[in-house]
Amino acid sequence: MEITRNGTRHSNKGPAEYFTGQVRVDPLFPAHDPARTSGAYVTFEPGARSAWHTHPLGQILVVTAGSGWVQAWGQPVHEIGPGDVIWTPPGEKHWHGAKAGTSLTHIAIQEALDGKVVDWMEKVGDDQYPNF
Amino acid sequence: MEITRNGTRHSNKGPAEYFTGQVRVDPLFPAHDPARTSGAYVTFEPGARSAWHTHPLGQILVVTAGSGWVQAWGQPVHEIGPGDVIWTPPGEKHWHGAKAGTSLTHIAIQEALDGKVVDWMEKVGDDQYPNF
Repeated sequence: MEITRNGTRHSNKGPAEYFTGQVRVDPLFPAHDPARTSGAYVTFEPGARSAWHTHPLGQILVVTAGSGWVQAWGQPVHEIGPGDVIWTPPGEKHWHGAKAGTSLTHIAIQEALDGKVVDWMEKVGDDQYPNF
Repeated sequence: MEITRNGTRHSNKGPAEYFTGQVRVDPLFPAHDPARTSGAYVTFEPGARSAWHTHPLGQILVVTAGSGWVQAWGQPVHEIGPGDVIWTPPGEKHWHGAKAGTSLTHIAIQEALDGKVVDWMEKVGDDQYPNF
């Protein structure tokens, strides 16, 4: 049994290559082989969002604070808030992030396939990001 | 993409067969094949705890509120609180729950192996439960 204490897992910046705006990743747990699930809190400052991306085995988001957006490619954008849980199936192109005026925090949980948890694509342009 | 909204996932009682005291399970997400991870909030009222058990692919606990205990078989009992993350490896016999005087809430995340996420064993006796 391994206990990692609150305050001992270093916060990281969401890389500018994959995110627009200011994003913080607070790791919760890595995958422990033969288990393949990892998890982290992700906090988006107002206006911040992920790039478009897919996950080889899908992803669960559990929203814990704030108000934001999630969108699958070719589908309408959906508002998300605390307690909402979003399942994105394997290979579905999507993005998630904060609203222009409010931050968003969610837990992100995903399984690795051959050691990979995400395939990054192009950024969400200002023409694609909801301006309300 | 599937969004389940806050307030739409029915709370369940932790079965008396596997828990001592009053325990509530608030489901977050089921496993979505080919992914195999499921998750739920589990809330233990003061004095409540799981029976001894193992997980075929291990388990992650993310403590979100309260104060409680976790113990692996043959090891000391450890106090846990908000922000602590506990990894129990596959097959390790253990229990978790509240303190006698305080409730505990954690997220529990585990992967299924051949459709199974847990093997339940005997209850944690009053002689095994910390009386402080």
